[in-house]
Amino acid sequence: MFLKAECLQKGGSFKIRGAATALQALGAEARRAGIVAHSSGNHAQAVALAARHFGVDAVIVMPEDANRLKVAATTAYGATVVQAGVTAANRAERADEYVRKGRYLIHPFDDWLVITGQGTLGLEIAEDAPEDIEMALFPIGGGGLVSGSAIALRALRPDVRIIGVEPAVCAAAKASREAGRRISLPPAQTVADGARVSVGEKAWSVISELVDDIVSVEDQEILEAVHFILTRSKLVVEPTGAMTVAALLSRRFRSGPAVAVLSGGNLDPEMLAQRWSERSTRQ
Amino acid sequence: MFLKAECLQKGGSFKIRGAATALQALGAEARRAGIVAHSSGNHAQAVALAARHFGVDAVIVMPEDANRLKVAATTAYGATVVQAGVTAANRAERADEYVRKGRYLIHPFDDWLVITGQGTLGLEIAEDAPEDIEMALFPIGGGGLVSGSAIALRALRPDVRIIGVEPAVCAAAKASREAGRRISLPPAQTVADGARVSVGEKAWSVISELVDDIVSVEDQEILEAVHFILTRSKLVVEPTGAMTVAALLSRRFRSGPAVAVLSGGNLDPEMLAQRWSERSTRQ
Repeated sequence: MFLKAECLQKGGSFKIRGAATALQALGAEARRAGIVAHSSGNHAQAVALAARHFGVDAVIVMPEDANRLKVAATTAYGATVVQAGVTAANRAERADEYVRKGRYLIHPFDDWLVITGQGTLGLEIAEDAPEDIEMALFPIGGGGLVSGSAIALRALRPDVRIIGVEPAVCAAAKASREAGRRISLPPAQTVADGARVSVGEKAWSVISELVDDIVSVEDQEILEAVHFILTRSKLVVEPTGAMTVAALLSRRFRSGPAVAVLSGGNLDPEMLAQRWSERSTRQ
Repeated sequence: MFLKAECLQKGGSFKIRGAATALQALGAEARRAGIVAHSSGNHAQAVALAARHFGVDAVIVMPEDANRLKVAATTAYGATVVQAGVTAANRAERADEYVRKGRYLIHPFDDWLVITGQGTLGLEIAEDAPEDIEMALFPIGGGGLVSGSAIALRALRPDVRIIGVEPAVCAAAKASREAGRRISLPPAQTVADGARVSVGEKAWSVISELVDDIVSVEDQEILEAVHFILTRSKLVVEPTGAMTVAALLSRRFRSGPAVAVLSGGNLDPEMLAQRWSERSTRQ
């Protein structure tokens, strides 16, 4: 099992790839007008970092129940965070208010520039992964990472199977695959906070063509995978980022040499401490 | 601050460097006779791994209160672990019983081959660290890592200051420096379980000549550094391995660009969960 450790990325997740690509492409007028983004946390931090780098004013709309460390980091990077009354369900709508006032939206996934940026991860796997890799596993939330990376991988390493992984309680991509069209599900409660959204239209148009299989994992399996990666690989991975390893550990499929993408490491240690205390008590 | 992340090393710490060097140098007769080692945990795992690699039978003497994950890993690597009645104070003596039966001792630090092996870390810092590095910080327990690395660094990067860091409750190297001769202290209780031993004779002969300064850090500072590295760098570091970062964060000295050695990552998540629950409660 090879791990692509995006937890070590600037901002703690792969999201800086898409955010930097989208910000870099903004014209002078859009840069002056400022930007807005909505995010459960990792895209928020990435946009804040990229905006600071390019000197662009940023407003980030985050749900009230967002991971508090992600909110603190976004603020520390210089963005204005808006949380009052924001939920996973209304965050896009709330961001639209700022778009109507003239700000440019950096969408977390349904944007070809963002998808292009996330695709650099697939490019790196294609360049760096050993020749005998049979499979590459990606977490699916909105689908930006897997779709961008699938385009790069399919072109450069056509024999590598591309697998998407999502939480069982929020398996919109799997439902879409079975229905043969994009299905949107309401945001569900899962430890994988980065995967509460449904797959986007642009991402789905790629996923439906290029992704070989989509599997889902239970929250308990995800937490066990976080524990496994922490104790064996000494890497801090957030639940969303550990879904790929959870899928491999579940032995749901024959696994030759595989690359598992650890999409981010913005874990709340206190949340984890609580889960582990419960775990110790149970055992 | 540059981090030398030995938590990502095979066996979870720098100890594999010395263990592999010592095992490789054993003659055919010693390999047949088998080896013995005593360790609080990281040297144990490293020796077990190296012994398996070279096909040598290994007995490892570990204190009864050793980190249970380190004990489990040592056993899993194929070594015979002896724990009954073993303490930090009598472990060397208990290992001697096996030496008298004909086994070859792989000492955790007081052995020139082990010191040579640990020194490859200093060699890598000399090769990889940016030109403007002013300081390299090493944890001190028995002193094998800092002494081996100091020899390499002093030769190749003579302008880099070499700093040793040890727990305040078990500051044998600092006491030795002040006394002008090696002082041995009884093992003390500290979260830095890898630094409960006093600095060895051979290591001291190097440290007294080549190490520029020795500083000590409190247990609470060490735990805060573990938390800092986990949340910011997304790396799992055990308390002993976080002492160098604790020293830098304490601002006890002027710090230009510095390399902090994270010596190991064999953290017990349940121990940490408990400490963090207490921390949340306090705040």
